[in-house]
Order: sequence, then C-alpha cells, then structure tokens
Amino acid sequence: MSQFWSDIVHELTPYVPGEQPKVKNLIKLNTNENPYGPSPQVLAAITAQATDELRLYPDPNSERLRHAIAEFHGLTANQVFVGNGSDEVLAHVFLALLKHSRPLLFPDITYSFYPVYCGLYGIEYDALPLDRHFEINIHDYDRPNGGIIFPNPNAPTGIPIELTRIEALLQKNRHSVVVIDEAYVDFGTESAVRLINDYPNLLVTQTFSKARSLAGLRVGYALGQQDLIEALVRVKDSFNSYPIDKLAEAGAVAAMQDVDYFEKIREKVIATRESLVRQMEAMGFVVLPSGGNFIFAKHAKIDGGTLAERLREQYIIVRHFKKPERITPFVRITIGTEAQTAQLLSALATMMPF
Amino acid sequence: MSQFWSDIVHELTPYVPGEQPKVKNLIKLNTNENPYGPSPQVLAAITAQATDELRLYPDPNSERLRHAIAEFHGLTANQVFVGNGSDEVLAHVFLALLKHSRPLLFPDITYSFYPVYCGLYGIEYDALPLDRHFEINIHDYDRPNGGIIFPNPNAPTGIPIELTRIEALLQKNRHSVVVIDEAYVDFGTESAVRLINDYPNLLVTQTFSKARSLAGLRVGYALGQQDLIEALVRVKDSFNSYPIDKLAEAGAVAAMQDVDYFEKIREKVIATRESLVRQMEAMGFVVLPSGGNFIFAKHAKIDGGTLAERLREQYIIVRHFKKPERITPFVRITIGTEAQTAQLLSALATMMPF
Repeated sequence: MSQFWSDIVHELTPYVPGEQPKVKNLIKLNTNENPYGPSPQVLAAITAQATDELRLYPDPNSERLRHAIAEFHGLTANQVFVGNGSDEVLAHVFLALLKHSRPLLFPDITYSFYPVYCGLYGIEYDALPLDRHFEINIHDYDRPNGGIIFPNPNAPTGIPIELTRIEALLQKNRHSVVVIDEAYVDFGTESAVRLINDYPNLLVTQTFSKARSLAGLRVGYALGQQDLIEALVRVKDSFNSYPIDKLAEAGAVAAMQDVDYFEKIREKVIATRESLVRQMEAMGFVVLPSGGNFIFAKHAKIDGGTLAERLREQYIIVRHFKKPERITPFVRITIGTEAQTAQLLSALATMMPF
Repeated sequence: MSQFWSDIVHELTPYVPGEQPKVKNLIKLNTNENPYGPSPQVLAAITAQATDELRLYPDPNSERLRHAIAEFHGLTANQVFVGNGSDEVLAHVFLALLKHSRPLLFPDITYSFYPVYCGLYGIEYDALPLDRHFEINIHDYDRPNGGIIFPNPNAPTGIPIELTRIEALLQKNRHSVVVIDEAYVDFGTESAVRLINDYPNLLVTQTFSKARSLAGLRVGYALGQQDLIEALVRVKDSFNSYPIDKLAEAGAVAAMQDVDYFEKIREKVIATRESLVRQMEAMGFVVLPSGGNFIFAKHAKIDGGTLAERLREQYIIVRHFKKPERITPFVRITIGTEAQTAQLLSALATMMPF
C-alpha cells in the first residue's frame, strides 16, 4: 500500500510467466519455446541492421513488416497490426475491442493472462468451464456477451477446436468481437485467418515466439478487417508510437519470408510430438490431444507437482500449474529436440514404476 | 464509429510522432535523434546476441540492464524500471502513479504525449501556462494535485529548470508524485537523479534514444525509490511480461557501460549547439536557451511553418508545431553533425533577408 499508487495498482494480480532459469545445462521444456533457432536469414538480417542507423527511430507503422505478414497470409497490410510480442497485442485488444457493458467470455482453463488484462482495464468477464474432456463447448458461449476470446489450440491443454465450430460462433455473435489467439496454431491446428474477409467480427492473433523461433525478439500481430485494426492502431498511438524496434522489424520480416525454414522446423516439432505422445502413452500417461508445440499429460500414479519436481532433479524443467485444481494432476511439457525428448523419456523411465 | 470498438477508442486523440521520411538524403533535424551512431561496443554486443538463443524468451525482469543502469547512476537495481522506450515507461507511469482524484498538473506547452496518456487512462489534468519567457513557474504548481510531470529541459522549448526549483517543488508536494522527464538531460541540464534517495515522491525518466544514440532500439527507464518502481512493475506485469527483447537488452547494457563514448558525443552535440545558436542569433533569430539536443528558434520576419517548408525545399527537415498558437512562430531544430549544421546555416543564408 502506498499513497503514491493509483487505486488500480492496489487491485492488480499480475501475470507470472514461466521461469527463465539463469543456470545453463537445463533441458528447458517449460515455456513452449521452439527447440530450433530462427532461420539463418533472420540472424543475417539482424546483423545487417546493427549499424549507425540505430540512432534513428524505427518506422512507427512498421510498414515493411506489416506487408510481409500480409503477404504470407494473403491479406492486405491494413488488415495487420503489430506489437511488442503478442502479449502487448492482446493487451491492446482487450482495451480497444473487448471492454463493453456485457461481460467478456473465455474458458475457465486458458491462457492465464486473460483475467489479468481484465483486471488492468476493468473489464467484466465470465470464465466458462471447459467440459469434462477439457474441451471448449461453443454452445456455452451462446449468451449475451461483450466479446469472446480463447486460444486455438487452447492453453495449457493443447486441445484444438475445429474451424467449423469457430465459424458457427462467428455467425451467432455478429455484434461482438471473437478473438482467436493462435499463438500455437502452426503446430497442426487449422487457422481461422481464412475466415477474416467473411467476418468483420473476427480478430486472429499470432506470434513470432513459437513456430518462428523468436521469443527473444518480441513480435506479435493481429489480423482482422480494417475497422478492428484501426481500433488497435488508435490505442497503440495513444500508448507508444514505436513498439517495434529496427532490429525486431528486420528479423521478423526475414522470418516471415523464409517459408521453407518455417515449414521444416514446424514439421520436425510435430513429428517429435507424435513420437513423444506414443511413448508416454505406452508408459501409462494420459496425454490430451495436442495441436501445439507442447503436451498436457498426467499419470494416475503421480501428482503433477511431484513429477515436475522429480524431473527437475534430473535437470529437466516442465511447467506445473497449481490452479485450478482440475489441472493439478497434469504437467505441461514443451516439445524439445529429438535428443532432448530422448532424455526426457529416459528420465521418466528411471522413475518407473511411479 | 464501430459497434466493435470499446467506448474509449472513439474518444482518443492519438499522438502524432515526427515524420520518419522514407526518402534518403534528407538532412533530418526533426525528431531529436543523435547525429552520431551508437558506441561500436553496442553494435558488437547486438551482433554477438544474434544467435540461436533468440528462440528463448528474454529475462522478463531485465536484471542485467537494470544493474547496468543502476551502476551508472549510483542507485540499486530495485530503483530502476525499464520499458520499451521511455514512451512505454511514461504510459505505465501515468496509469500507475498519476491517476488520482485530484488533477495531474503539467505545462500547457510541453511533450504533447502527456494529454494523450490522460485521454487513454481517463486522468483529469490541468495544463498550466508557461510564463511569457516560455518558462515553467513552479509557484503555479503550488495547488492541490494528483501529481506533477514535466520534461527537464522542457520540450519543445529546450529550456532547463534549475534543480533548486525542482527540490522546492518536491518539498511542497510530499503527498503526490513529481515526475521529471529527463529525455534530453544529458545535453547540459542538471539531473534530478541525485535527489532520489531523499525524496520518495520523485520519479525520473530517461531514455536511450537521445544521448545514447539508440532511438532505433526502444529502451527507456524510470528511476525512483522502490515503492514507486514496484507500482510500475505491477502494471508492466499486468500488461506485457517481456517488454525488452534480448537484442535491446544487450545493446542497452553496452551503451550504459561505454561511458567514454557517451561523454564524447554529448559534448560534441553541446559544442555544435552553442556554435549554431551564436550563428543563428547573428542572423537575427531569437533562440530560446537550450539544455537539450535541439533548439527552438524564431525570426521576426518569417513564420515557423513557412520556414520549415522553405528548409524542406532545400532537403532539410525541421519540426514545426501548428499549435498552440504561441509557438507557431518557432521551429524546433535538432542538433546535427557539424557538417549538417553548416548546411543548415548555408540554407538559411540563401534565404536571407527573409
């Protein structure tokens, strides 16, 4: 408590990101980063940009980057909004498009930053329970609302939702914005981007942090019709004129353009995931169906927290969520390289039987 | 107007940054960038960081950078808050520390982002007129308030305010936060940083965009006692966990550590400014006293807008403000290299007499 703090500061419950350990030599499977580095073209583009030109402000509108993203997705640049990571993009989305008199709807088990944004901006929300298979039931969302948001695939479950169901939701919610947070979409989930030109109420967010291996660069974006993008631009230009620095723009443009590399590494991650799931199921784990670069798994004989601790003793870090209670049996495991996955499996084997 | 926009979006009047021209070969004296590039150590640090490690998230708390900044200023790391440019830092400052039931106070002629932040966050404010010499009269601020903010030196006038007057203001405002925005302080203005340990109500913001030649990298920071910094951290962690990317952190650390380079280029800029002022005064210009890397100048025979246009015809861009009316006779001219300054002076000479 401080006399100097604005009232809102006293009420905030900030988001807690996964650990970024300072120790080296850990197998880091806790924050869903890509196990493979970015395209060599990205590193070359960044190095080429490390010049005296850094004395100048970047392009406040990130035209080059917005064009590169638009081209990849078959959209126009004025259907693209970019920000300092998809977390910043989402923050602007909550303030610009999801603050209405009716409550915002999202799943009770989902990206835990959503209720934090609501707290920051004073947005009322209803968190709707996932069904007993940890799936989103879109009929639950058939009620008056000021907006709907969920990740596809969902986090931390990894379960994807079919595009036909998203389209049904868009049709039933003509007067509120439906945001599909596609941070993990490139690992085998069908994207809603192709619905954008048909639905003025659809906004899709994506990131360079996952399939494009650039979590360290902080670039995310939103795609939607121009009316929605304009709202985001107005908020951004009332907050920070230049969110994308020159190096981030150069790197992100190169990442977007090197489609071959992108295809290659996402396919590798998907193949490793499928192999890991088969082997963990053979060990008696229950693994939720995953459309992301991570799996959500539990074993009847061991609690999720205990499993995470025992893996850490073997220098492997995975993520365990202490709430809500329904997910405490699970651990979330990021898909690593084939070698890291082999080490994870041997570590699990040494613990067997639990 | 859109049914999808939150109410606030309809009411925003976004900030308009100075032009970043796409054309090369302009002498760009319009956005107060440093005419000299960053330290070679900065470029080396960035290049060294352009590796596969970019696949990993940066340190969400930017420990290395906060320590480097603290060391430079003789403070501790928990007295340092960093953000994606000082504009982002200021945005968080407005929400976290300046939103109270009493109005925020700032000068009527100042950084034009301040009223924009107030619009974004619903902060009431009183803009207090500068005196007839375009100076801040601190006695005007001797009234109930929810906070005070101004740049030192002020923008776009460039006029510095003495530290003794800031200290008097801090003593009279024990119950509200006084923010000194020191974006341009390194060009000959006395910093309030040394008052931080004595005044729990003092927050100072600085940037890497000016004296450290890194406008293209987007790093700014706030300095204050831990109670104020904690409020900013809480807002930041409710908005975006990782505002500083790995490349920006590496470059900013190197910039903070290369003190010799910093001293050398800021002294060069100051010397060029003094010489420019003398020569423009000899041409009949009135130049306000400047403690920044820019000057605010007018000539009785020509309007500021006309002068800016005529300079542009000679490929030199300076900034002209169309409001408020009191400053329309002026142009704001960034201090360039010695060669650029010589070109500016010849361009002015060709126009003489106006």
